[in-house]
Amino acid sequence: MAGSSFGTIFKLTSFGESHGIALGGIIDGCPSGVKIDFDLIQNELNRRRPGQNNFVTERKEADEVVFLSGMFEGKTTGTPIGFTIQNKDQKSKDYSHLKDNYRPSHADFTYDKKYGVRDYRGGGRSSARETVCRVVAGAIAKQVLRKVGIQFSTYVTRIGTVDYDSSIFFSQKEIDVSPLKCPSKDVSAEMERLLSDFKAKGDTLGGIIQCVIKDVPIGLGEPVFDKLHADLGKAMLSINAVKGFEYGSGFQSVGMTGSVHNDSFDTNGKTKTNNSGGIQGGISNGMPIVCRVAFKPVATIMKDQETINSKGEPVIIEGKGRHDVCVVPRAVPIVEAMASLTILDHFLRQKSNQI
Amino acid sequence: MAGSSFGTIFKLTSFGESHGIALGGIIDGCPSGVKIDFDLIQNELNRRRPGQNNFVTERKEADEVVFLSGMFEGKTTGTPIGFTIQNKDQKSKDYSHLKDNYRPSHADFTYDKKYGVRDYRGGGRSSARETVCRVVAGAIAKQVLRKVGIQFSTYVTRIGTVDYDSSIFFSQKEIDVSPLKCPSKDVSAEMERLLSDFKAKGDTLGGIIQCVIKDVPIGLGEPVFDKLHADLGKAMLSINAVKGFEYGSGFQSVGMTGSVHNDSFDTNGKTKTNNSGGIQGGISNGMPIVCRVAFKPVATIMKDQETINSKGEPVIIEGKGRHDVCVVPRAVPIVEAMASLTILDHFLRQKSNQI
Amino acid sequence: MAGSSFGTIFKLTSFGESHGIALGGIIDGCPSGVKIDFDLIQNELNRRRPGQNNFVTERKEADEVVFLSGMFEGKTTGTPIGFTIQNKDQKSKDYSHLKDNYRPSHADFTYDKKYGVRDYRGGGRSSARETVCRVVAGAIAKQVLRKVGIQFSTYVTRIGTVDYDSSIFFSQKEIDVSPLKCPSKDVSAEMERLLSDFKAKGDTLGGIIQCVIKDVPIGLGEPVFDKLHADLGKAMLSINAVKGFEYGSGFQSVGMTGSVHNDSFDTNGKTKTNNSGGIQGGISNGMPIVCRVAFKPVATIMKDQETINSKGEPVIIEGKGRHDVCVVPRAVPIVEAMASLTILDHFLRQKSNQI
Amino acid sequence: MAGSSFGTIFKLTSFGESHGIALGGIIDGCPSGVKIDFDLIQNELNRRRPGQNNFVTERKEADEVVFLSGMFEGKTTGTPIGFTIQNKDQKSKDYSHLKDNYRPSHADFTYDKKYGVRDYRGGGRSSARETVCRVVAGAIAKQVLRKVGIQFSTYVTRIGTVDYDSSIFFSQKEIDVSPLKCPSKDVSAEMERLLSDFKAKGDTLGGIIQCVIKDVPIGLGEPVFDKLHADLGKAMLSINAVKGFEYGSGFQSVGMTGSVHNDSFDTNGKTKTNNSGGIQGGISNGMPIVCRVAFKPVATIMKDQETINSKGEPVIIEGKGRHDVCVVPRAVPIVEAMASLTILDHFLRQKSNQI
Repeated sequence: MAGSSFGTIFKLTSFGESHGIALGGIIDGCPSGVKIDFDLIQNELNRRRPGQNNFVTERKEADEVVFLSGMFEGKTTGTPIGFTIQNKDQKSKDYSHLKDNYRPSHADFTYDKKYGVRDYRGGGRSSARETVCRVVAGAIAKQVLRKVGIQFSTYVTRIGTVDYDSSIFFSQKEIDVSPLKCPSKDVSAEMERLLSDFKAKGDTLGGIIQCVIKDVPIGLGEPVFDKLHADLGKAMLSINAVKGFEYGSGFQSVGMTGSVHNDSFDTNGKTKTNNSGGIQGGISNGMPIVCRVAFKPVATIMKDQETINSKGEPVIIEGKGRHDVCVVPRAVPIVEAMASLTILDHFLRQKSNQI
Repeated sequence: MAGSSFGTIFKLTSFGESHGIALGGIIDGCPSGVKIDFDLIQNELNRRRPGQNNFVTERKEADEVVFLSGMFEGKTTGTPIGFTIQNKDQKSKDYSHLKDNYRPSHADFTYDKKYGVRDYRGGGRSSARETVCRVVAGAIAKQVLRKVGIQFSTYVTRIGTVDYDSSIFFSQKEIDVSPLKCPSKDVSAEMERLLSDFKAKGDTLGGIIQCVIKDVPIGLGEPVFDKLHADLGKAMLSINAVKGFEYGSGFQSVGMTGSVHNDSFDTNGKTKTNNSGGIQGGISNGMPIVCRVAFKPVATIMKDQETINSKGEPVIIEGKGRHDVCVVPRAVPIVEAMASLTILDHFLRQKSNQI
Repeated sequence: MAGSSFGTIFKLTSFGESHGIALGGIIDGCPSGVKIDFDLIQNELNRRRPGQNNFVTERKEADEVVFLSGMFEGKTTGTPIGFTIQNKDQKSKDYSHLKDNYRPSHADFTYDKKYGVRDYRGGGRSSARETVCRVVAGAIAKQVLRKVGIQFSTYVTRIGTVDYDSSIFFSQKEIDVSPLKCPSKDVSAEMERLLSDFKAKGDTLGGIIQCVIKDVPIGLGEPVFDKLHADLGKAMLSINAVKGFEYGSGFQSVGMTGSVHNDSFDTNGKTKTNNSGGIQGGISNGMPIVCRVAFKPVATIMKDQETINSKGEPVIIEGKGRHDVCVVPRAVPIVEAMASLTILDHFLRQKSNQI
Repeated sequence: MAGSSFGTIFKLTSFGESHGIALGGIIDGCPSGVKIDFDLIQNELNRRRPGQNNFVTERKEADEVVFLSGMFEGKTTGTPIGFTIQNKDQKSKDYSHLKDNYRPSHADFTYDKKYGVRDYRGGGRSSARETVCRVVAGAIAKQVLRKVGIQFSTYVTRIGTVDYDSSIFFSQKEIDVSPLKCPSKDVSAEMERLLSDFKAKGDTLGGIIQCVIKDVPIGLGEPVFDKLHADLGKAMLSINAVKGFEYGSGFQSVGMTGSVHNDSFDTNGKTKTNNSGGIQGGISNGMPIVCRVAFKPVATIMKDQETINSKGEPVIIEGKGRHDVCVVPRAVPIVEAMASLTILDHFLRQKSNQI
């Protein structure tokens, strides 16, 4: 009820604040007997970590996950998987200037009003640092799904005004060549130029991440409220800074006619086009699932901003420190994690639909 | 798990197929002692009903809801509210031509593969007729929320290529003046012309519905997975034909800079702009909540289409009968219903957060 | 949250008051393709119905269930099964004497205080009439479980002071020979004599029902909170008038030593004794599941009782009308229904535990 | 779905095996602004800990809980409370003799069959060591409830054949005087003699724990499936070694007549007797809630036992090491924890029932 869990059968419950002792989570409902590749998990954490390139925060945290239960001799046991990630630097910074001040377009104001108290250090629970737990759980889900052949391709299709139009399934290797996780060399270079400009200005930019999921069995998704794309949408919208979600033809469909938009069947049950984005009536149809997630520009900018404190008095918050010009490339493993969690949960739900 | 419920405290569970005996639902968790205005409920059903104008299906069903429990002497008792809506014409049509054929971009194929059996008459459970239950429950939720002052304004901002740009809170009266539920007289007229064109062509169009919710208390929404906009997004994406969801600045935010996008505070705690769409960090901030929902063009068109049957053989499905050129105006009360269900659920959740 | 649902994957949500228009429910998560035997469902309803013998209420209600959805051509479709049972006599009685008076050991007082309003006719939602919905859903669950070979034997082992000690699996035919559902001819006759005595006195008696479930696969039940017997216990304790639950050796185990109580294994994996009642560590072990449910004497007696009204004033409630001397025999199909719902839910949960 | 969570609004999710790195949990839904007394939590852990007297295991583990999140400056923040308890001695023992052998009346056999793999060290997830997490969460729940005046009195009323008949509310101080948590000096002494006898024999005994809860507001508990006593029953039945649950008159009610069993009202709304055990129709009535929990004798005995291994071959398991003669006194804080979790969850549920 308090919103710290995601999923129904494969369920992640997470805890932790940006500058508390540790973050962590419990994965309940993981099938037993799955051999876990710990390097893969750490690699996903590294992809999300700050300090990878010039455009994201330069702080270097280890982000090492420790598993406390639910595995034995390298395999899952079917019991809950508890894990923690220590906040190594949690005491090193001075956040007292945020104690009473509300940063614009952050959650300082709303947390204070909702709870009457908040851990203001680094945004506390509202910090995107929380997503580290999603990446851990997603990396486990992805390994379970790999056993049944489902694969993910997640990449940046837009930063600011630079757009990349594609619905191809790229390998992670092809994506990771780009520091901005855009698999086109040219577009990636253009995005880099744009970010360099805005870094100099102390300003920030948003972007779009696309996730393509292939070899999903037909039949995942539950009518009527838990349609597969509705749960994917909720998954993505729950990520910090996300402002919109669409799948298949998405918002573009609005301007299309039915006769153009309809996906004709081939005699093998595949469709000739994929405006449906792999989902019809809320249920996967065997075509690649394609969805896109819109991220707003980061609220923390390197410019002074007028705001108010908890007494309603006007104050200035200075733009200082080291922050992301654009958080979107780092969000790629987070989007993929949420997709993995959603697809695995529905895969397990579908198993219980038939006797 | 099978997806027929929406909400956590105020929970709707629904049942029913397009051409079964009846549809209906159970609302569990409705606060007790709320006087119910049955005319308001019927009015919302009428707004959703086919046959209201030239651009939607001409069939006229009564859509009368019967309440079976949970109310006594006109007030809610706190016990579950059971209700049914009879399908008056369920035996009058011949749907045998759909028995083995899969209509393009409908759910015939996916239901058949998921369940191995389906009620093919009129789309069965996948028909948008299911949304009648949402409208009933939403109309009750709206009455509960009215007691605490929360109000909704839901209208069409786009049909096909005709766009109406506004974030004003219009009254239902102002909206209902337009047969297409677009509160601008001029834009509505333009939309009507467009629909007339496409009706003649036997083709269909999509559109966008915007929902503005005002006087929402600060503090609704649960971090981190059940952010208020994540639950609103799921609510909307679960409606038939929806392809995308955004709130506040939405997909537009991608091209904005942080310094422009950030919403500055006034000293009264309100913000000068509302790019946040009334939600910060997943929690309502007291500003109007603004979200938009994209609908694809209706899949049923008045043109012959090539498709396949359950054996994978190519067949032709004829475009015949009477269908909607554009379903978007009828979807306005459905969007509002889903918004009401989401907001009331979070209102009740927030009540249990403090002792 | 408001407690009107039971189960997680196979989920019953029910509604309805004793003297409202109808009771009913929605079964969500029923596997598709199960052929339904409607006579079996009606037969279970008849076994629960009043008016079967001299010791239960003489009113004869038809208790006919109407299925509104979720089935097509006699088989389940995987979509939610909606059903209603009309209250045929709901307007025929005068319950105004209960409007302001609180019957001792009924729920009149607590409902009034909890909700501030109640449907006082015949106990409203607190009436055991509500269990009719459980019997419908249980009869469907039992048919699904029959496909995998799981069978139930439920019978009365005690009424008042007359006890029958057995853990045998009797067929329903053997049980139904007894009007009191006690499969021993002699003990049943003794129970009948006892009830005749108490009927003459206008007083009531309680009893115990035992449920034996055989051919349950090994592995049902989820550690640590959803142990199979914990969910069975909750299922049974949720039935009106139930005061206690035990499984296997139950309360008797308290006086036994570990060396006597431990169930030794045979080399085939079966145990030589069954003090565990078919469940070890919360998980079924393949032995028959055996549990017992204690029912208090019915609160409605044919004697005048002193009580209070809603103003706290002392009043007399007359003992009049026709009521059960002992409700226990009629509760046999209810206990079996709750056992069926619990076992099927865990059967489906276990299917999703492995990939 | 995998059963590692308890509660709906105030929800505990736990993880951890007996000999893994750590156990722990997440409490989601704790109201914000509650000052936490950490000594009280540690004291409850100490009451549960092994090594307190001659009749329980002599191992001395520190059982120190570390809170990782959800608190700031000593108060709850409303965000999830993550905590861990390290298993300090997890590598010190040799459990390889249990790797392939199934101990009688333990969960070795069922875990192996359910999951196909298990952490066999000390029982893994099936060990009662898991209850340490319940005690942590319960001690927090108890502090929240203290703010609204609800109090608990939990004590031993039976060990083996020695019985103590009472329904008095004793203070924790009065209970803790007895090493066996039985507040009667004489009965406690008699129980000690009995346990000394059985310790010498290497055998074990069961017992009964009673929980009395006073000053519970009228109105907690949700009809029809989530009756307050049904959720209490499930809570208790989920504790290791529990075989039965009853409340109020419990199994005794079976032999009583309705006229004797009914609780007459006083004009102040209290009842003259309390056979209802503080709950009528599933809802608290303001009288003390009284329930009893039956524990079987511990399965681990100091005698050699014949059993089988995973190949079905007969083997002997030796009775050696140091184990509890009777686990019941140590289970007192566990029973109280589960009662606290249940009552607080229903307290918060009731808050959301009215607008």
